[in-house]
Amino acid sequence: MTSARRGDLFDPACPTRRLLDRVGSKWVAMIVKVLAESGELGFAELRRRVPGISQKMLAQTLRSLTDDGLVHRRVEPSVPPRVYYRLTPLGRTLDEPLAALREWAERHMPEIDGLT
Amino acid sequence: MTSARRGDLFDPACPTRRLLDRVGSKWVAMIVKVLAESGELGFAELRRRVPGISQKMLAQTLRSLTDDGLVHRRVEPSVPPRVYYRLTPLGRTLDEPLAALREWAERHMPEIDGLT
Repeated sequence: MTSARRGDLFDPACPTRRLLDRVGSKWVAMIVKVLAESGELGFAELRRRVPGISQKMLAQTLRSLTDDGLVHRRVEPSVPPRVYYRLTPLGRTLDEPLAALREWAERHMPEIDGLT
Repeated sequence: MTSARRGDLFDPACPTRRLLDRVGSKWVAMIVKVLAESGELGFAELRRRVPGISQKMLAQTLRSLTDDGLVHRRVEPSVPPRVYYRLTPLGRTLDEPLAALREWAERHMPEIDGLT
């Protein structure tokens, strides 16, 4: 790290690299957008809003986002218990850079798809 | 796709999803930054500027970026031939959204690393 206060992507020892790979996936881009728009959602509703994601991939991605402090998991003590997910304040800060990347991909995909 | 002119990340049939996974990796984030700053670089110099990347991973990532029309590959007919890489105009449009994501990861990594 270049300083104690921020990461350095170009330092192989810095965890910023692994963080970038965790947040740069298409699933994270979609989950963060849906939660940013919806506030809080249950697992099933979230899965319905991210078409094509498997139950296992959604569970894994939510666990990773929760471990990173980007998503808050709330268990409602009903019978059976229900689990809800929302972005933390830190998670909300991720929506803007991801929106720029989503927007780029959506805008330029037709050009790129025409090439390959 | 929602229209003929742009992709839709939330449509499972749309190639925007795969595109986002290709450009969202840490290696792409670093390669695009280095090429955006340097203009054109040979393979060895590029590898030196992206610490920790293997020869194989750099070659694969450059091939993927070239196939997507984001990087231009130029072979100089010297003996032996030398190969140079630079961003295409389309590739340069990717630098801004990736810079926002890199910046986010570098700024927030210490908070997140403190949690895990």
